[in-house]
Amino acid sequence: MLFYHHGYASGACVCVCICCVFKSCCRLCLQNSELFTLTYGALVTQLCKDYENDEEVNKQLDKMGYNIGVRLIEDFLARSSVGRCQDFRETADVIAKVAFKMYLGVTPSVTNWSPAGDEFSLILESNPLVDFVELPDNHNALIYSNLLCGVLRGALEMVQMAVDVRFAQDTLRGDNVTELRMKFIKRIEENLPAGDE
Amino acid sequence: MLFYHHGYASGACVCVCICCVFKSCCRLCLQNSELFTLTYGALVTQLCKDYENDEEVNKQLDKMGYNIGVRLIEDFLARSSVGRCQDFRETADVIAKVAFKMYLGVTPSVTNWSPAGDEFSLILESNPLVDFVELPDNHNALIYSNLLCGVLRGALEMVQMAVDVRFAQDTLRGDNVTELRMKFIKRIEENLPAGDE
Repeated sequence: MLFYHHGYASGACVCVCICCVFKSCCRLCLQNSELFTLTYGALVTQLCKDYENDEEVNKQLDKMGYNIGVRLIEDFLARSSVGRCQDFRETADVIAKVAFKMYLGVTPSVTNWSPAGDEFSLILESNPLVDFVELPDNHNALIYSNLLCGVLRGALEMVQMAVDVRFAQDTLRGDNVTELRMKFIKRIEENLPAGDE
Repeated sequence: MLFYHHGYASGACVCVCICCVFKSCCRLCLQNSELFTLTYGALVTQLCKDYENDEEVNKQLDKMGYNIGVRLIEDFLARSSVGRCQDFRETADVIAKVAFKMYLGVTPSVTNWSPAGDEFSLILESNPLVDFVELPDNHNALIYSNLLCGVLRGALEMVQMAVDVRFAQDTLRGDNVTELRMKFIKRIEENLPAGDE
């Protein structure tokens, strides 16, 4: 790592190799995410013990995600300084390039738009939630990362957007990529606030 | 934010205000931790539904933390480049200054050493796991962040160190600070590897 000290009069600035600085920051973020990944794994494992079948676990993860999303949106709006999106295409870009980057450290690509422009896919080359995860044979209906669907649904509901979110492909089930499919349902009237599910 | 472009021949270096770069990186890390905090909250809530009393939830959190710790240590050693600690004082410093900083973004202070040097406290001015958390009246025996005790116990066991870890103070229960008390028990023989609890 290269650090060049530089003689600015204020003394506040040094000349550094910016790539190194960002690399070391990203390393720190990634390390934080390892604890998150393992804690998320503990949550899914607990739900698999609690519920009779994978469908129930999937539902529960979605519901928990929803409750997280309705809280997380406030943090997201406050820190990202993102304003109101003009249309669903802008929403898609903000989710992929700002929200995913911010909370999961990855930037999915936005593809497969429906002709009506009301449906698209987020393609994740890698999913930090599933690092080191393998689904046991008796859990082949488990949608391991289903919390994310709920988070997106809950967060968007708080900005008056009802959406349907589901996993269309999943590397954990042998697909090449992970694909989240998002469908716009309707705008929600501002005077009907959402609450816990 | 100030960015000064600088004409190094290689083109690889620019002169930047390093405080701004780190601030913006830390902002990203903190944002990531918000999702972690809320997911951890979902886990604790689920355990409170599953188990009859707070003592059982505390035990379960400790056990889950143990299983996370025995995995996390590998990631920690690989990325931190920390070598074998010479004594318990060095271990205390590495936990506070490297591990806590890395995974939770905070640096507790190391204090209250026992005369024999086998016991110390980690004082956390703030605990990212409890942001926005309030304990309901019917959960006054809940040790909300008890997962951390298990993580430390599990991780240290993998480097042949048996320790006892417990919360001595907790801001969630009205104390001014959060205090983790760690006690060295014994060195573990290298040929007895630990497993899942």
